[in-house]
Amino acid sequence: MRQKQVVTFGEVMLRLSTPDYARIVQATQFDVTYGGGEANVAISLAQLGLPAAHVTRFPDNELGKAATNLLRKYGVDTQHILYGGDRLGIYFLETGASVRPSKVVYDRSDSAFAALEPDMIDWDEVFADAAWFHWTGITPAISAGAAACCQKAIEEANKKGITVSADINYRKNLWQYGKAVEEVMPELMAGCDLIVSGLGDAKDILGITPKEAAEEEAHISVFRQIMDRFPKIKKIVNTTRGSVSASHNTLSGMLWNGEQLLETQTYDITPIVDRIGGGDAFIAGLIYGQLQYQDDQRSLDFGVAASVLKHTIKEDANLATVEEVEAILGGNTSGRLVR
Amino acid sequence: MRQKQVVTFGEVMLRLSTPDYARIVQATQFDVTYGGGEANVAISLAQLGLPAAHVTRFPDNELGKAATNLLRKYGVDTQHILYGGDRLGIYFLETGASVRPSKVVYDRSDSAFAALEPDMIDWDEVFADAAWFHWTGITPAISAGAAACCQKAIEEANKKGITVSADINYRKNLWQYGKAVEEVMPELMAGCDLIVSGLGDAKDILGITPKEAAEEEAHISVFRQIMDRFPKIKKIVNTTRGSVSASHNTLSGMLWNGEQLLETQTYDITPIVDRIGGGDAFIAGLIYGQLQYQDDQRSLDFGVAASVLKHTIKEDANLATVEEVEAILGGNTSGRLVR
Amino acid sequence: MRQKQVVTFGEVMLRLSTPDYARIVQATQFDVTYGGGEANVAISLAQLGLPAAHVTRFPDNELGKAATNLLRKYGVDTQHILYGGDRLGIYFLETGASVRPSKVVYDRSDSAFAALEPDMIDWDEVFADAAWFHWTGITPAISAGAAACCQKAIEEANKKGITVSADINYRKNLWQYGKAVEEVMPELMAGCDLIVSGLGDAKDILGITPKEAAEEEAHISVFRQIMDRFPKIKKIVNTTRGSVSASHNTLSGMLWNGEQLLETQTYDITPIVDRIGGGDAFIAGLIYGQLQYQDDQRSLDFGVAASVLKHTIKEDANLATVEEVEAILGGNTSGRLVR
Amino acid sequence: MRQKQVVTFGEVMLRLSTPDYARIVQATQFDVTYGGGEANVAISLAQLGLPAAHVTRFPDNELGKAATNLLRKYGVDTQHILYGGDRLGIYFLETGASVRPSKVVYDRSDSAFAALEPDMIDWDEVFADAAWFHWTGITPAISAGAAACCQKAIEEANKKGITVSADINYRKNLWQYGKAVEEVMPELMAGCDLIVSGLGDAKDILGITPKEAAEEEAHISVFRQIMDRFPKIKKIVNTTRGSVSASHNTLSGMLWNGEQLLETQTYDITPIVDRIGGGDAFIAGLIYGQLQYQDDQRSLDFGVAASVLKHTIKEDANLATVEEVEAILGGNTSGRLVR
Amino acid sequence: MRQKQVVTFGEVMLRLSTPDYARIVQATQFDVTYGGGEANVAISLAQLGLPAAHVTRFPDNELGKAATNLLRKYGVDTQHILYGGDRLGIYFLETGASVRPSKVVYDRSDSAFAALEPDMIDWDEVFADAAWFHWTGITPAISAGAAACCQKAIEEANKKGITVSADINYRKNLWQYGKAVEEVMPELMAGCDLIVSGLGDAKDILGITPKEAAEEEAHISVFRQIMDRFPKIKKIVNTTRGSVSASHNTLSGMLWNGEQLLETQTYDITPIVDRIGGGDAFIAGLIYGQLQYQDDQRSLDFGVAASVLKHTIKEDANLATVEEVEAILGGNTSGRLVR
Amino acid sequence: MRQKQVVTFGEVMLRLSTPDYARIVQATQFDVTYGGGEANVAISLAQLGLPAAHVTRFPDNELGKAATNLLRKYGVDTQHILYGGDRLGIYFLETGASVRPSKVVYDRSDSAFAALEPDMIDWDEVFADAAWFHWTGITPAISAGAAACCQKAIEEANKKGITVSADINYRKNLWQYGKAVEEVMPELMAGCDLIVSGLGDAKDILGITPKEAAEEEAHISVFRQIMDRFPKIKKIVNTTRGSVSASHNTLSGMLWNGEQLLETQTYDITPIVDRIGGGDAFIAGLIYGQLQYQDDQRSLDFGVAASVLKHTIKEDANLATVEEVEAILGGNTSGRLVR
Repeated sequence: MRQKQVVTFGEVMLRLSTPDYARIVQATQFDVTYGGGEANVAISLAQLGLPAAHVTRFPDNELGKAATNLLRKYGVDTQHILYGGDRLGIYFLETGASVRPSKVVYDRSDSAFAALEPDMIDWDEVFADAAWFHWTGITPAISAGAAACCQKAIEEANKKGITVSADINYRKNLWQYGKAVEEVMPELMAGCDLIVSGLGDAKDILGITPKEAAEEEAHISVFRQIMDRFPKIKKIVNTTRGSVSASHNTLSGMLWNGEQLLETQTYDITPIVDRIGGGDAFIAGLIYGQLQYQDDQRSLDFGVAASVLKHTIKEDANLATVEEVEAILGGNTSGRLVR
Repeated sequence: MRQKQVVTFGEVMLRLSTPDYARIVQATQFDVTYGGGEANVAISLAQLGLPAAHVTRFPDNELGKAATNLLRKYGVDTQHILYGGDRLGIYFLETGASVRPSKVVYDRSDSAFAALEPDMIDWDEVFADAAWFHWTGITPAISAGAAACCQKAIEEANKKGITVSADINYRKNLWQYGKAVEEVMPELMAGCDLIVSGLGDAKDILGITPKEAAEEEAHISVFRQIMDRFPKIKKIVNTTRGSVSASHNTLSGMLWNGEQLLETQTYDITPIVDRIGGGDAFIAGLIYGQLQYQDDQRSLDFGVAASVLKHTIKEDANLATVEEVEAILGGNTSGRLVR
Repeated sequence: MRQKQVVTFGEVMLRLSTPDYARIVQATQFDVTYGGGEANVAISLAQLGLPAAHVTRFPDNELGKAATNLLRKYGVDTQHILYGGDRLGIYFLETGASVRPSKVVYDRSDSAFAALEPDMIDWDEVFADAAWFHWTGITPAISAGAAACCQKAIEEANKKGITVSADINYRKNLWQYGKAVEEVMPELMAGCDLIVSGLGDAKDILGITPKEAAEEEAHISVFRQIMDRFPKIKKIVNTTRGSVSASHNTLSGMLWNGEQLLETQTYDITPIVDRIGGGDAFIAGLIYGQLQYQDDQRSLDFGVAASVLKHTIKEDANLATVEEVEAILGGNTSGRLVR
Repeated sequence: MRQKQVVTFGEVMLRLSTPDYARIVQATQFDVTYGGGEANVAISLAQLGLPAAHVTRFPDNELGKAATNLLRKYGVDTQHILYGGDRLGIYFLETGASVRPSKVVYDRSDSAFAALEPDMIDWDEVFADAAWFHWTGITPAISAGAAACCQKAIEEANKKGITVSADINYRKNLWQYGKAVEEVMPELMAGCDLIVSGLGDAKDILGITPKEAAEEEAHISVFRQIMDRFPKIKKIVNTTRGSVSASHNTLSGMLWNGEQLLETQTYDITPIVDRIGGGDAFIAGLIYGQLQYQDDQRSLDFGVAASVLKHTIKEDANLATVEEVEAILGGNTSGRLVR
Repeated sequence: MRQKQVVTFGEVMLRLSTPDYARIVQATQFDVTYGGGEANVAISLAQLGLPAAHVTRFPDNELGKAATNLLRKYGVDTQHILYGGDRLGIYFLETGASVRPSKVVYDRSDSAFAALEPDMIDWDEVFADAAWFHWTGITPAISAGAAACCQKAIEEANKKGITVSADINYRKNLWQYGKAVEEVMPELMAGCDLIVSGLGDAKDILGITPKEAAEEEAHISVFRQIMDRFPKIKKIVNTTRGSVSASHNTLSGMLWNGEQLLETQTYDITPIVDRIGGGDAFIAGLIYGQLQYQDDQRSLDFGVAASVLKHTIKEDANLATVEEVEAILGGNTSGRLVR
Repeated sequence: MRQKQVVTFGEVMLRLSTPDYARIVQATQFDVTYGGGEANVAISLAQLGLPAAHVTRFPDNELGKAATNLLRKYGVDTQHILYGGDRLGIYFLETGASVRPSKVVYDRSDSAFAALEPDMIDWDEVFADAAWFHWTGITPAISAGAAACCQKAIEEANKKGITVSADINYRKNLWQYGKAVEEVMPELMAGCDLIVSGLGDAKDILGITPKEAAEEEAHISVFRQIMDRFPKIKKIVNTTRGSVSASHNTLSGMLWNGEQLLETQTYDITPIVDRIGGGDAFIAGLIYGQLQYQDDQRSLDFGVAASVLKHTIKEDANLATVEEVEAILGGNTSGRLVR
């Protein structure tokens, strides 16, 4: 029997990045790709072999066509994408190295996605073949319309018994449309089964602070408070990133299932080829694990290993295969030539 | 004595073009430059050796900085550029060939320039050292604020006895801010000494149509009507472009000085390297001629030859020198190797 | 109601071409794409808005994955593609200019496609939603297995009442597996409704020669003989290419419907950006026309105009849209900038 | 007096690698070069100033010509190269980084080299001016014909008193022509004076396993058993590679001369620019040392330092000079700018 | 009130560097930029927001124009640049990695700058608006004319009370015009207020050696002797570079103000993107600090942090902003993504 | 029996050209190759299958090595190349299009070649295996030493009965070392058997002017006068280039053998890919023809067809094969795809 889909929903932007560590003022060419947190999850899942569909809205022009083509290229179902509106959001990426951080300049206002209105998407049809729905905190931060679409999607998913996950991800530069994060997010989170949340997100979005100082205890304390407030949430995951430099990070993950705090080993990633989408690769890997393994530790390990691999892959989305992630899980991080 | 400046005013956009005739859906890189009709005139004049200053507004970010740097690189005085606002306008260029036309996708709404307000620019200071002011019909089409700035500039220029020129250039996709072209342009044109206008522009902007059928007579008829309506205008120029294909055009020019219709030879341009900015190169060459030669025929010839050369030069602005334009004027269009 | 699919069947190769007119001995980089005559037809049809599926076989490695991705990117249904076998066929393209011809070096022996066996493809399933089936004379020339698959496809299509077209295209360097073209092709052609055939193909494959000398009469004479021999064939089309140089061709088309020889205007194409796939673009345009217009002249015109546009587009497949082809048909070959 | 040549014999493939750590599915260009283990040794020796000739067989097409040109460019004598056969073997290289390994996809079946037959090469003529002959275990693994040519070369070299070296290098994916490695290699090894062998090769090819556990003792034990079985072999060398990641390796070397196990320091190599050909650079350096220094420790040190430098040089072959290798040997691994 | 300028004086060369760690013998393209020690200081200061002018001489050709344009692009005042002479000096840069050092091949003889004659520059006019003058030991090493110009500049600066700094930088490959370094430099140094000098420079130029062995004491001893000999010099600065490899350096700085030896932390820089201009970035940062902060420790810290950032930026000049340098000073060397 | 060599003698420069029609002031990369008139002849002959050796002098650095490698790559014997001196001459090429001419900026003073001294080259050894010696008028224009070497070469060639050819090619920007062209060239020409000379060269070098006005008669008149003055010269050849634009030339050739003026057809070349080396390709083709065909008309035709092909090939040297030139001679200039 054909496997059911994971459906993701969110904005996709044109990404223009400077080649070879050039600064934007030096650049005479930009590398071109298209990406967005939720679409990155869909692409990653498709590379892992799961059917994935992405829902978004593109302008009806060459750029909207090119963005659709990128999703299609990597096997994502694009039949529910809407066309209309004025423009495709853009982000410019100046890739850093060593002590110089990468820098992102956003130019995403007034995008086709921001102009979404609640009735544009028929979620009943979108979810016809779905097992899982994933969204992030960026979507409700973009516009009232996007937030309302997200709300309707969660409601429909809940009605259909589809698992709902969210990376609640607070971005303070967004949320410009007149609503504060705390007015919008709690209602959306209430419909989730699994979320990605760090201590900062919990504080910024929910005002929840740890009651303990030690790192593990602090996390458990916050995760318990979140679950107390949102009883549908059964699992909370997070990654911990250590930044030695723009070229060298460490990464580990944790998962709280209400009872246990599962943790992974800490990986060293150097040099980093492309740091964008590391978190999306993690949640994609974790969703893959939840659907395929029915084992929280294994799905957490899979998510973190997938994210580590993403840092070695250019562009936004993780193109690693199950076999490659499993090689990392099997302890092979030595990068020996594969013939 | 140091020569006085030509001052230009208008929006500068980030230009993203596909290399090697690629379609936008095929592109994995975009070539990056910055350009705009009026700034192209300033750059061209600076290459011809005249002092030129450009007035515009850029966002205070990496892209605004890069756009400033491009103008500075080519010797344009950038001290009057303003910084602020949300974004830099963008245009995407898909370069055509043969029967396939080049295609431009604009993404210029809500630019830093569109958000200009009349009091932001101190034209008295800007014109301290100016002999000539040039604007185009694109600026008043962008926003009420841009139109108002343009109006104030023309008034100040007139007050100071500075020559005013305009490429009245009607773009029907602009003019979205609530005013129609005929409500705004006539007042601006009234302050001009020299304009670029084709038959189409005259009809679309002023409702003026030719009273004769033959080409020369039609032009003279329209030019007379314009001058009747705007007595300050003393010269009207125009180019005639023949399109054999996207790679092969012909070009000639005409100038009506109220008495005579001066005309130039017709040049063959094949292959075209970059067609964008051909009109800006023409007006720049013409302004150069008016200031240096005091001879209408020679300045018209110079403008057309400069424009022809521009078609062989990449990016928006004409980088030809006086020596190179004069070689064309001297009849050397055979492209023999210069050692 | 959703439109039915056009199904195409044939080999897809890795194409490695030298950039910027470099010779192969000069090249330090090759441009990479994937293409094949029949897949080019499917991609072209998908850009024209018709549902298209391609059937082929790829090795189960990174190159097979990349080739699949290219088809998917451009909206072709890839669900019937098979994976297995040893290698992906390759062709190297050295792009010529002026008097220097482009040169193709084939390296396609022992490909995954050549190793196809008749039972590998379930044509009943493939054709579940099909209205049209297209193949070319290259497929039966590759291997006995490929020829047998083609035979089964045609039989199944005939059984289901699906229109069958073929570009009978004789390549003398192929046909290395022990059968001569005349032993194999006639049986396959017998199941066709529409074919592309030039005088050379008719002679090489069927031994049919014109009974008249003048160009039109010669064609009619040959087309009549073909139809006499293959009564199912109702239309025969062909293009006539004039080669001024590697950079400058002329192109026109003809269609014989058993009664009339319809012809098109002759187009001038200069410069040629990429000549590969010109014939595939023609047949794709013609199929589009047959399905959408029910008008032979219009579908022939559409096919030729589509082919002309293809010569201005890089890589194997025609990425022109219906709107762009219709602009050419509407007489606009002057390549004026589209804003 | 002119120095005698080192002659190498083996297949050269077209190498197609993805630029900038791109995955094969992301690549729109491949970097092009030509390489093979034995040819890499010849090129490296030519850069070190020794006369070197390479014997191989190329198809008589543009690719064979380009491969010849690469060898000639770097000063290798190509007069004994044969032309004929169907194709040039190819390998695709996806360059890894950090935890993601580099990946090689081979497409080398049915190459011009694999179709070699024993009588095609006149070894008497080839060795007219030779002092040393080098081959690797890849050659006899390709085809019976290649193995037979290798056998004849070794016999002729032995007859002429030419030193014979081999990197016995077992590749389990090769050996597809019906013979097992143990049926072929021992006879070839019997004619060698010096070999490169690791513990794995000894076990896979000869079934020899160490009689001691500790690393040095294990190697000595295996090397003694090899020399007992093949009395002509007087020296066995090997490198030990530590893989921290795909971007960071360590490297040291050892040489057993029947009496002493000589060892080198361990070098840290980070970042690795191109890991391919590291082993070939080692044996080239060692041959250089054997011919120039008559000092095993120095030649071993030279080989390892040469190999370390190779990892910082793009493409297959080591382009380091004697002066550069000696700077490393002199302790200068700090990479200070050379003005 | 507008801030006064920092004026720099020195040769600017065309820099041709190999992309992607290629060796010069492998390169089919060179990356093009223009740079020189003193001009790099001017560019860096302009990015930090201080007005900076550079004085040099370029040939009156396309390359001189391009070099001027680069300075202008980054906001340097180029009005005092002279045109004439035969050629632009060139340097070729082969970028190293890991144990392979970067290599510079100079081709700078007979440049337009070397042909400078003392009367060509009107220093009174150049210094009309100057607060600081900076030169390096490279200029007097190039030619007698360049040395004489430098002498006149220092005299005029001293007369006008302009602060004079120098990086005394001894390059033994220069000084080919008949004078020894010790005949020329002392007189020039006598007019300086602040110099960059390492122990090696002090020994090579002045014959001054440390009287103490320990590192700090050795420096203090040498700095005291320099100040004893040149009483106008009030501050001596220097950086200490540790070379782990061509890709990994450490950097710290010191400043002796006659009383105290101030020191900075030691930074780790890995990977290095472009090591050229690291010293110029340091002195630019230090000058910025001296002019803006009136605090030796802060200006030293600023200089070192600026230099560290430079190593992550391509081309010769430091493009870091004050905000970016201050982020490093604030302890943020972890390269976390800036959104 | 092995064929005897054609020996060429002359300077080879580093060529730095702007990609994609960029102007030098726009370029951020230069394409890199190495070329010179006489070396281009040697490379071309080697591609045509004749043994060719080039004699020159390179600096003993990375650039000299790279230049040698280029010659070796294309099969030229480089054993007589000398190493020493200061620098490699450079020329910068800005590629024009349409009415904009290509522009060359030379930077060749004080090259290793210019510093040649007469005794450096042992012509007896160089000519050991030679049948033909070719030089050009550029060599004696570079320096007294280069002229003297040329003189000695011609004497030795004459002594050994080797055919001597020269492209007498007057470049007025050279000849800076104190001798006038008329003081040097006649003596060198006296030793030639075949020369390339146009009417301009004859006038500038020898003061010979035509005694007739019509084109053919004018040439015959001048050629007769040359032969009267230099009785050893038996054949004079020339090409006539028509410049429609920088992208479109016409080309034909003539040969005077003392009796007959042979002429070729006129070819149209559009677009021109690389015009540099067109004349060198002509003389190489002509030498090939003289050596292989013993037929003046055929060798002239071959030379012109070879030159026409060169215009479609990038870089300085003609890489066309005999088969390709003969296809043009056979009338195939239509550039039809070769499969």
